[in-house]
Amino acid sequence: MEREEVAADREVGEVAKRATPSEEEPASDGISAVIPGWFSEISPMWPGEAHSLKVEKVLFQAKSDYQNVLVFQSSTYGKVLVLDGVIQVTDRDECAYQEMITHLPLCSIPNPRKVLVIGGGDGGVLREVSRYSSVEQIDICEIDKMVIDVSKQFFPHLAVGYKDPRVTLHIGDGVAFLKAVPKGTYDAIIVDSSDPIGPAQELFEKPFFESIAKALRPGGVVCTQAESIWLHMQLIEDIVSACRQVFRGSVSYAWTTVPTYPSGVIGFMLCSTEGPAVDFQHPVYHIDQDEISIKSMGPLKFYNSEIHSAAFCLPSFAKRVIGSKAR
Amino acid sequence: MEREEVAADREVGEVAKRATPSEEEPASDGISAVIPGWFSEISPMWPGEAHSLKVEKVLFQAKSDYQNVLVFQSSTYGKVLVLDGVIQVTDRDECAYQEMITHLPLCSIPNPRKVLVIGGGDGGVLREVSRYSSVEQIDICEIDKMVIDVSKQFFPHLAVGYKDPRVTLHIGDGVAFLKAVPKGTYDAIIVDSSDPIGPAQELFEKPFFESIAKALRPGGVVCTQAESIWLHMQLIEDIVSACRQVFRGSVSYAWTTVPTYPSGVIGFMLCSTEGPAVDFQHPVYHIDQDEISIKSMGPLKFYNSEIHSAAFCLPSFAKRVIGSKAR
Repeated sequence: MEREEVAADREVGEVAKRATPSEEEPASDGISAVIPGWFSEISPMWPGEAHSLKVEKVLFQAKSDYQNVLVFQSSTYGKVLVLDGVIQVTDRDECAYQEMITHLPLCSIPNPRKVLVIGGGDGGVLREVSRYSSVEQIDICEIDKMVIDVSKQFFPHLAVGYKDPRVTLHIGDGVAFLKAVPKGTYDAIIVDSSDPIGPAQELFEKPFFESIAKALRPGGVVCTQAESIWLHMQLIEDIVSACRQVFRGSVSYAWTTVPTYPSGVIGFMLCSTEGPAVDFQHPVYHIDQDEISIKSMGPLKFYNSEIHSAAFCLPSFAKRVIGSKAR
Repeated sequence: MEREEVAADREVGEVAKRATPSEEEPASDGISAVIPGWFSEISPMWPGEAHSLKVEKVLFQAKSDYQNVLVFQSSTYGKVLVLDGVIQVTDRDECAYQEMITHLPLCSIPNPRKVLVIGGGDGGVLREVSRYSSVEQIDICEIDKMVIDVSKQFFPHLAVGYKDPRVTLHIGDGVAFLKAVPKGTYDAIIVDSSDPIGPAQELFEKPFFESIAKALRPGGVVCTQAESIWLHMQLIEDIVSACRQVFRGSVSYAWTTVPTYPSGVIGFMLCSTEGPAVDFQHPVYHIDQDEISIKSMGPLKFYNSEIHSAAFCLPSFAKRVIGSKAR
């Protein structure tokens, strides 16, 4: 597959432009009409394909101030959280996403103390941050309170993250929150966002990355959700370019498998600010061997030190594009 | 996700038992009825989920002596080859599968000379084997001539593999073919099979592995398609156990991403016979830097030496099961 083929029609502007309802799209507030009794994920961000899960029971369905929120019991993936028609979390494969987006940045620096999570209302990232005994302060800024409430009700194994006394919850806009953060506050920032259509759009733009860089201490790290190399190469190329301009330390791209995400993979943009050098591919800490973490929360299901390093190995078609931009 | 959860209902026998048509299944000889104008892949091997591709045009549809064969033009994945309702190849992501199943074994030994492909009727594996100037003889045994004819007609960039003068085609049953192979004939055998429902069932069983071990020279290698760690952990566990009993050299499991395969990943079982030691994770040859191959066929799209090694790094839930069985 040629790069041009993969990236076709998937520029940021193009995506936004095409994000209008069409006859192919399911009603964004609920179960798809295309397969009766199934949920189908159809979006202009991945045209011409759909992933469908059989629905046992719809558990929750409402429109928040920001998006449509749906929870259903699937027949083989456990409970599923859907925002604006796009699957965010399933019981069965959430471990891959939550563990990778958290431990890729936090194992790359010694003794993280202050951590900020943008988005991540379901609490899964908080749960994973809680594994670190070095961490003293965990702030989370989530725009949509309904996501938090729904997670506490239906995904207790994710929302357990909120029980950590080190967590402070801020309901609000992550962009505004970051602007008000004093310079050099955080060791690590994790941006657990939805796709760049809807409330998360600004989280993929350069001014946001500039706010992040300012809020990090020298040598601090950020990890942001960064789409699929199979579907969104051009969008990723733009993000890498923006990050390379903003961050003066390392700029790396990693990826992992999540079966219920489009194309079955999701990527992460990892950057550090100017300061102590960060080599993302070679973790300085092995959380999978941390006895306190394992004793209190059980072993990790997905992440380990080898898969940390492997996540930075890219297929040749992606390496040619990202490798020329990252460093 | 707990191992028990992943493996639920997916024992080999269980799969076979459930492989009878049900109301959920599309007609196995063609386009799904569940989404009009779309192809939907629904199978008892991955119950409760479906991946669907929008169809531009059906190009071929027939029943061979062994299976239903369908080719359609999809709107965003190029042409798609479907056997018994299961996607085998799409133009857009075939590179990942063909390159990994071929170069994982062939880069793990020095100077492969004689290579056998079982299945692989589309020709894609042949195309990748052709990259090796050390190879003198390429045999392929495919059971279904219709798959070959259809590939030559609709997938010329795959079927180009048949043009290599080193290739000898045998139409027939791979199990019978292997039994007749003189002991110690091949340096490498690649088993590019469909799922263990239908004509490929025997290719996942111990007697077949014994025939392979016999047909390989000492220190020779085999790579077989080995399903998804997200969906078929128990089936994989059985395959690993069988291989560990049969093969006296290395026994390793690798995996890669293929967006149009169920759960977005596919695995490979890699084994070597007693003889010169084979360390699958550290390739002894770098085909991605082979000047002759690049000059004649262009650069590889997916495979490179780093992704070779990374493919053997497993998520913790899989490592706990496979690691205890492999060596």
